[in-house]
Amino acid sequence: MISRDSILHRPKSNFAYGYDEETLHIRIRTKIGDVDKVTLRIGDPYIWTKGGADGGNLEASDGSGWSGVNVEMTKEVTTEYHDYWFASFKPSHKRSRYAFILESSEERLLVGERRMITLTKDNTWVLSDLSNFFCFPYLNKKDVHTIPDWVKDTVWYQIFPDRFENGDKSIDPKGVEPWGSRPKHHNFNGGDLQGIINRLDYLKDMGFNGIYLCPIFEARTNHRYDTVDYMTIDKGLGDKAKFKELVEKAHEKGIKIMLDAVFNHMGSESPIWLDVVKNNEKSKYSDWFHINKFPVYDKPYDELDGRYLNYETFGRVKSMPKVNTENPEVIEYFMEVGKYWIEEFNIDAWRIDVANEVDHHFWRRFRDEVKSVKEDVFLLGEVWHDAGAWLQGDQFDAVMNYPLTDAMKQYFCTRTINKSEFIHAVNQVKVSYSLQVTEHNFNLLDSHDTSRLLTTASQDIDRIKLSYFFMMTQLGSPCVYYGSEIPMTGKHGGGLEDHRKCMTFDHIGSDMHTFMTDIIKMRHEHEEFKLYDNKWLDHDSLLIFKKGDLHVVINPTQEKQTLELDKSYLSYFDKNQVKDSMTIPPMGYCLLK
Amino acid sequence: MISRDSILHRPKSNFAYGYDEETLHIRIRTKIGDVDKVTLRIGDPYIWTKGGADGGNLEASDGSGWSGVNVEMTKEVTTEYHDYWFASFKPSHKRSRYAFILESSEERLLVGERRMITLTKDNTWVLSDLSNFFCFPYLNKKDVHTIPDWVKDTVWYQIFPDRFENGDKSIDPKGVEPWGSRPKHHNFNGGDLQGIINRLDYLKDMGFNGIYLCPIFEARTNHRYDTVDYMTIDKGLGDKAKFKELVEKAHEKGIKIMLDAVFNHMGSESPIWLDVVKNNEKSKYSDWFHINKFPVYDKPYDELDGRYLNYETFGRVKSMPKVNTENPEVIEYFMEVGKYWIEEFNIDAWRIDVANEVDHHFWRRFRDEVKSVKEDVFLLGEVWHDAGAWLQGDQFDAVMNYPLTDAMKQYFCTRTINKSEFIHAVNQVKVSYSLQVTEHNFNLLDSHDTSRLLTTASQDIDRIKLSYFFMMTQLGSPCVYYGSEIPMTGKHGGGLEDHRKCMTFDHIGSDMHTFMTDIIKMRHEHEEFKLYDNKWLDHDSLLIFKKGDLHVVINPTQEKQTLELDKSYLSYFDKNQVKDSMTIPPMGYCLLK
Repeated sequence: MISRDSILHRPKSNFAYGYDEETLHIRIRTKIGDVDKVTLRIGDPYIWTKGGADGGNLEASDGSGWSGVNVEMTKEVTTEYHDYWFASFKPSHKRSRYAFILESSEERLLVGERRMITLTKDNTWVLSDLSNFFCFPYLNKKDVHTIPDWVKDTVWYQIFPDRFENGDKSIDPKGVEPWGSRPKHHNFNGGDLQGIINRLDYLKDMGFNGIYLCPIFEARTNHRYDTVDYMTIDKGLGDKAKFKELVEKAHEKGIKIMLDAVFNHMGSESPIWLDVVKNNEKSKYSDWFHINKFPVYDKPYDELDGRYLNYETFGRVKSMPKVNTENPEVIEYFMEVGKYWIEEFNIDAWRIDVANEVDHHFWRRFRDEVKSVKEDVFLLGEVWHDAGAWLQGDQFDAVMNYPLTDAMKQYFCTRTINKSEFIHAVNQVKVSYSLQVTEHNFNLLDSHDTSRLLTTASQDIDRIKLSYFFMMTQLGSPCVYYGSEIPMTGKHGGGLEDHRKCMTFDHIGSDMHTFMTDIIKMRHEHEEFKLYDNKWLDHDSLLIFKKGDLHVVINPTQEKQTLELDKSYLSYFDKNQVKDSMTIPPMGYCLLK
Repeated sequence: MISRDSILHRPKSNFAYGYDEETLHIRIRTKIGDVDKVTLRIGDPYIWTKGGADGGNLEASDGSGWSGVNVEMTKEVTTEYHDYWFASFKPSHKRSRYAFILESSEERLLVGERRMITLTKDNTWVLSDLSNFFCFPYLNKKDVHTIPDWVKDTVWYQIFPDRFENGDKSIDPKGVEPWGSRPKHHNFNGGDLQGIINRLDYLKDMGFNGIYLCPIFEARTNHRYDTVDYMTIDKGLGDKAKFKELVEKAHEKGIKIMLDAVFNHMGSESPIWLDVVKNNEKSKYSDWFHINKFPVYDKPYDELDGRYLNYETFGRVKSMPKVNTENPEVIEYFMEVGKYWIEEFNIDAWRIDVANEVDHHFWRRFRDEVKSVKEDVFLLGEVWHDAGAWLQGDQFDAVMNYPLTDAMKQYFCTRTINKSEFIHAVNQVKVSYSLQVTEHNFNLLDSHDTSRLLTTASQDIDRIKLSYFFMMTQLGSPCVYYGSEIPMTGKHGGGLEDHRKCMTFDHIGSDMHTFMTDIIKMRHEHEEFKLYDNKWLDHDSLLIFKKGDLHVVINPTQEKQTLELDKSYLSYFDKNQVKDSMTIPPMGYCLLK
């Protein structure tokens, strides 16, 4: 008997969605190893050769009179407990009803929305009993999640502006500390926009074609997530003319610019918040935040304890009062902010901070507004967990793909999961979303919010190389945190800020810098990496998978491993012909075709 | 071992949602009979007594330092293959991270978002490893699905206007046929708004307090789903003054009015469509529809075949061209229509025709617009299948609950499912949605789109009585199709329109009329029917369940059945004390407390 209780399908989700205005994608989940074959039975509810609503013009495939067809599904991936099956289909008139036929050696089972029925020769009518079929009512173009094409060709470089390069000492913040001094919560090192402009060629030469900039608007801290004015560049970083210059020069070099949208909360020194602090209920901004009790401050600011506040905050951080994004005035204000930096400065993307704590309504409106001024602007949400609720096409284009991050770190760097756990985790992330999301999702190994990868890997450079190499072979758009090419170390937490250290540029031509440049070049040269499938091949110790005609081979062990070759491969890194077998050195990797 | 592969939970769905701005509802699905106890482990990610982001002020429950608490879940319902478990929780600061602890005699299993882990004494740290927890990031008020309270107190009466009562012969459509003549696709019988006004007391006396009116705007057919003018009352029904009178008089009697919003398609005689037919590409309305090729009509209208058209339609019906609801002009037009009838006539609800074939974007906007002019307007979608995608709070308030309809018909009327299949089906519908949806969902047994219940029940009046009796005991808002109180027969399909016959009023005081009046009275008198739980009790033949202190007893068999009573019950229908046991006659039913 096929296990009924494991089967999962739900229309209008990652299990059934429009991929484009003509194509439906359908998935179903079954218990691992339980089913040999799955067939999608699908068609238009109104097209019948006999009977049915209005007659029909297509031949029925089962003699029932319904025009539905059978499409064999492919086994998409396997996760720890499940197999996933996939098919795509182009409905003739946008409407679809469908069911699944699951086959094992013991049984053929029809899976419909209301019932699962064992198929026998006496009940073939259930193959056309549309009242038990799933429904994808109409493939409306507007509901299709459309994501800017350029994203999948982008390799991002994330910059924490205060720590990248000081290009203009004349605008250094007061009390700036020497470049390279140990980062603290509240010190400044003087990195600025001119510094980034200075290094555009450096980034271009490495192959980066997108920059994700942590906040640059006026703020009080070095991280600038405590915005004071959303319409001003922080004067420690430069001014609007300088930012315009940065965007223009970046664009000339084919580099996209993504800014950080911190709309969940404001900084406690923003004039808007200060007006509420001063005037309390009487402030015209009193409803711009979540204030549980007036006065807002029941003691001097310095004495306030984040755990006991009269207002809601990000986390329990008193300097970050949470914004009331349900207030129509607030909505209008942020819509203008969102459009202003696109219209006036031609930025390419917004990365959305603490995206999941703001209401969905706000993001739906935001998407509509910013896409109305630049159709191919990219919206990236900061969501660390399963983000399906934000990725249905009405809110974000993609999210920071931390579940994949964790799998890569655990397999390559900390060795806390084994190969099959790794493969299952990689697969699980993919089936959690539509194909278009996975094609554009934002893959990363570390960020300003995590320890640096080298620290996670206990300083083992080989391990981080395998991680980056693997990430570059995966569809999505990969991001490298500034300094990873040195590579930098840095622990997050424990009161330290070592993951946000000052960048240096004396490593050019070093082993890691060359490695990073090579793998970015490799990524840009191979369309195969944009394929969905990792065709995982068996090997006791090596991680091997096919992307199209390419073979990706990774040896995550400390021993050399032998790879028996059943035909001639051509190594990507050294172009020698190899025969019979090849040896992959400890912590080695290569690309074969 | 607990069956991992059957377990299902996904945040921001029917498995985890805000019930109100303070309360989170959490569900998890397990394999039927597999688990004895489930505990929800939940808390704020930022509140720790030691460690954590910013310290904390609550005591940890497991010594880890995290402030999460354990909440025992109740077994909500059982479906054919699964048990569902439920808990509600009020997060202290709107943020929640959570996992589940499943217990069987063999194992305690922690279910997190990324991994399931058997709990041992050595790994209690996983109870606070929030990186593996599910996330409900923030309980934003705006995202909570709020549904007008009055709906759950409403018992609806559905009227097909041409066939209810002819109250004004002076406005009869040309060629009107005699009242009671056999319904055809294209004849008129002259029912009108005055006829409905005439019968408001009749409806009030029976206990109805809501009228769902099939379309009343100008159209060409008797069903009027082929709208000609959305801003005009069809002159065969009356005029705006008459409609205003109807709404006002209904409101005086405590009766709500729901109109039918047919925005998926227009009628082929609407001036807008005719302009496109006439001017083709040059029409200012050419993008108001889905036209694949001009000319719109490639032959005279009468010769057009619904299967081969140059334009998309509802179904394959040439007289119903599908509207392009992605066109901004179209959107503005229908938003005005939606608001006009509320603002000018004070209607209470829109029933939305073919709701699932229009894009979600359109309905989100529609909800915002109509709720902005009348906050407690009710939005009911016509969706026959699993409607989760429309019931997240951003689109409809409820749907026509056809999956429940089918279960009731199959159990009580056609006897094609047995008691346990029925109970499982009833339960399945409920766990498919949030509690607030189920509390307000639109329950029905037949409609203008189905055969009449009595025909489905092969003329067996006892069977339809059991169906109505059961429906009245369920939460949601029940609807009775006009004429069911006679009761009428009528088959849908096969070229006939017998399910839309002319109403008569010579049955007042008859057995069925009295029955219907009684059970509506019963529904209004007992708040218990608004409870979620049907506590199903064991009995070989009877269907028995508790709603609060009430016992609902139904005998769907042709034999009398004995119910052993372990205490004294009071019959609702006859107030005699009964002892020891009671006999339920064939097809009998009663309410005990």
